[in-house]
Amino acid sequence: MKAKSQRTLITQTPQNTEKEVTVKGWIQTVRKHGKIAFFDLYDRSGILQVVATGEVVKIAEKLEQRDAIKVTGTIKKRGEKYINPNITTGEVELDAKEIEIVAKSEVLPFDMGGKDLNLELPTLLDFRSLSLKHEKVQMIFKIQAAIAKEFRNAAEKLDCTEIFVPTIVAGATEGGAEVFPVDYYGHKAFMSQSPQLYKQILVGVFERVFTIAKAYRAEPSVTTRHLAEATQMDVEIAFIEKFEDLLDALEFVGTSVIAAVSDRYPDILKSFGVDRPLVPSSVPRLTLKEAQEIITKRTGRDLTREMDLNPEDEKEICAWAKVEKKSDFVTITHFPMKKKPFYTHPDLKDKTLSLSYDLLFRGLEVLSGSRRVDNYDQLVSQMKEKGVNPNDFGMYLMAFKYGMPPEGGFSFGLERLTMKFLELENVRQASLFPRDMERVDERLSKSNPKNKKTK
Amino acid sequence: MKAKSQRTLITQTPQNTEKEVTVKGWIQTVRKHGKIAFFDLYDRSGILQVVATGEVVKIAEKLEQRDAIKVTGTIKKRGEKYINPNITTGEVELDAKEIEIVAKSEVLPFDMGGKDLNLELPTLLDFRSLSLKHEKVQMIFKIQAAIAKEFRNAAEKLDCTEIFVPTIVAGATEGGAEVFPVDYYGHKAFMSQSPQLYKQILVGVFERVFTIAKAYRAEPSVTTRHLAEATQMDVEIAFIEKFEDLLDALEFVGTSVIAAVSDRYPDILKSFGVDRPLVPSSVPRLTLKEAQEIITKRTGRDLTREMDLNPEDEKEICAWAKVEKKSDFVTITHFPMKKKPFYTHPDLKDKTLSLSYDLLFRGLEVLSGSRRVDNYDQLVSQMKEKGVNPNDFGMYLMAFKYGMPPEGGFSFGLERLTMKFLELENVRQASLFPRDMERVDERLSKSNPKNKKTK
Repeated sequence: MKAKSQRTLITQTPQNTEKEVTVKGWIQTVRKHGKIAFFDLYDRSGILQVVATGEVVKIAEKLEQRDAIKVTGTIKKRGEKYINPNITTGEVELDAKEIEIVAKSEVLPFDMGGKDLNLELPTLLDFRSLSLKHEKVQMIFKIQAAIAKEFRNAAEKLDCTEIFVPTIVAGATEGGAEVFPVDYYGHKAFMSQSPQLYKQILVGVFERVFTIAKAYRAEPSVTTRHLAEATQMDVEIAFIEKFEDLLDALEFVGTSVIAAVSDRYPDILKSFGVDRPLVPSSVPRLTLKEAQEIITKRTGRDLTREMDLNPEDEKEICAWAKVEKKSDFVTITHFPMKKKPFYTHPDLKDKTLSLSYDLLFRGLEVLSGSRRVDNYDQLVSQMKEKGVNPNDFGMYLMAFKYGMPPEGGFSFGLERLTMKFLELENVRQASLFPRDMERVDERLSKSNPKNKKTK
Repeated sequence: MKAKSQRTLITQTPQNTEKEVTVKGWIQTVRKHGKIAFFDLYDRSGILQVVATGEVVKIAEKLEQRDAIKVTGTIKKRGEKYINPNITTGEVELDAKEIEIVAKSEVLPFDMGGKDLNLELPTLLDFRSLSLKHEKVQMIFKIQAAIAKEFRNAAEKLDCTEIFVPTIVAGATEGGAEVFPVDYYGHKAFMSQSPQLYKQILVGVFERVFTIAKAYRAEPSVTTRHLAEATQMDVEIAFIEKFEDLLDALEFVGTSVIAAVSDRYPDILKSFGVDRPLVPSSVPRLTLKEAQEIITKRTGRDLTREMDLNPEDEKEICAWAKVEKKSDFVTITHFPMKKKPFYTHPDLKDKTLSLSYDLLFRGLEVLSGSRRVDNYDQLVSQMKEKGVNPNDFGMYLMAFKYGMPPEGGFSFGLERLTMKFLELENVRQASLFPRDMERVDERLSKSNPKNKKTK
């Protein structure tokens, strides 16, 4: 018999049948029936049914959803009829002998006991510190943590060194106006729009690098796809021999992350009603033009003047890849230079096109990147063409003076990939504490007296 | 024989002796002697001596430090006398048959060929995109990447879930004035001083969490220890039974990170002249009072009125631990409540003291943390005592309404730990692109016309 003070994790309870254990956790649901009460208790490892009879019923009667408790009792086999095949502890239950309330919960503003948490998005976010406790909401972030981990694993297999780059920067990365200004000791600085420029500098040092970094975009609009503060997973590799080396790398990272996370959490995929992704041995590759021709053939829509795929097009070309190539992935290359940032390398066969690429997954672009300009003079000239002042990027440009080999890279949005992986409706569901035009945790409404305007 | 276009990594060259290979990399040093030239070439895997004779000497003569090149030739055994036992390729060299300049470097502003890069800190940072290419500077960031990786490994062994938390926040974390204000869509927001409040919320969700996150401190001073933008490695765990559970966790993470990194990079430790750390089976633990008494005994200094250990004290108590306990680590607990932020739990036996701790490593505090207040009312009251407005922390406080168990945690500064691990003089050496009062990559001097004041 174990000492009572020694805690047993819930997933370890089946192997302790007929033994006395102490478990700790939060109450997910309670069912009280007079002389007997049942509750589902969860900890970080799993969920367990606890039965209270006799003396302990008095305490059990006081228990409500989300109370944190400590229970000591004996692990018993359930009767055949009561076995729950959906949970790892489904063949046992804890016959409670002592229950201690560790931290009492206030009355909940909504029910947290159901399989799904059916709340409108604003309510879900207004009560984020509570709503995150719901099992199905938690699952989203288990997937997110796994995506990050598998991304790092894949990047390490490519021999990338992890880098930690600054987010306070002197100039806007991509020349846009959509940046957050920071008062930096009286000087004007900005929150970085991406780790792009630093990872480029750093392939000149480590040859291959990766980072998970914050990206800040002050886009003045509220959409289902954008966050003001997002998490970006970036890779950059140098000494490439040809454009296809980059495509090989991005498809390796993209598909292996998604395959590994699917393998690890088949039960979460099932809970969200999502099929296991079709991961092909080689991802179909199309130029933008080829993709547009396929879409035109399938839909009759004329795309000859379009510079990009719109959301409808992305869905259509993914539908094609799924049926024709048995793939949930498709790589699109050669977007027009016009639409790309200053550091994008043109295709020397047609300089109006760029050596750029997007990886689409199930109808959504989840990754993009390009080969970069590595020649100093060309880089300065492309900056000027895009209205970017080279003087604001001295440290970046320095890297191109001292032997910068051909290089390129790509980046994923962590929240966007999480959203797509679980087929969520809104990217805010895939951010623990989303930042957008409307809130910094609490709503930024003008009626809220706490929210003073800066000017 | 391999196809010429197939690149061989430098560390793979010894196993290709007498074969033709193609390698790519940057030139570290060149030694030209008329009809023969030698150069050291490095790629992401290692360093290799290349010999140019005959026709290729003409190309070799044009080569200078930091040119990026591609060399094809045959791997030869070196003569007995020329073996270099300090590098993995020390028994071979590449007899160059073809050399292609991939990217020519400009003339360097200083010599990059020596074992050490002897530059004053301002020059080192003014030329950061170049100085980072020096082998010994690179090593610092190999150690940094390994620290981050081993931190995640240790946190995962504690069953922590990785979380991604926001850095744009509505209120200052610790009540201080030293925050960077951000113009957030016309509202005033701040860059977060630490992921502290979010990790506390999230132990109410996942029970145990970790994160690597940015921390922004607008400290109006330049010291060798502080960065305006630092990287923090955080752990938080709930359902603790006793204070010592937290000490066990932090010592496990602290010592296992340092031991694992030392095991992985003994050669880097050697390059920096640093001994392998003494990692004891159990870290000595002292209250602040006990530590002060020891220091007084050793030095005669009266510390009875001191609320903290100053840098000299930290060195002294570490000297004691090293001699008396054969440990490069020592844990100091029970700092006065007065010096601690609002969320720190008091020691119920003496409420002027807190359940806080620092982990010292070789004379420097590298980690700190505490048990936290988990009771809502007490938390609100401690906020008010510290002059923090509870209305600014609605989302944080919400977490304490719904069953917050006893919890605590700790955090490391990634750059500070890197600095200490390699015994660097200044924390800026341990940040790829350090942010401080004086620079955002380039110097913020008023004479620089690009640096307009915001007001």
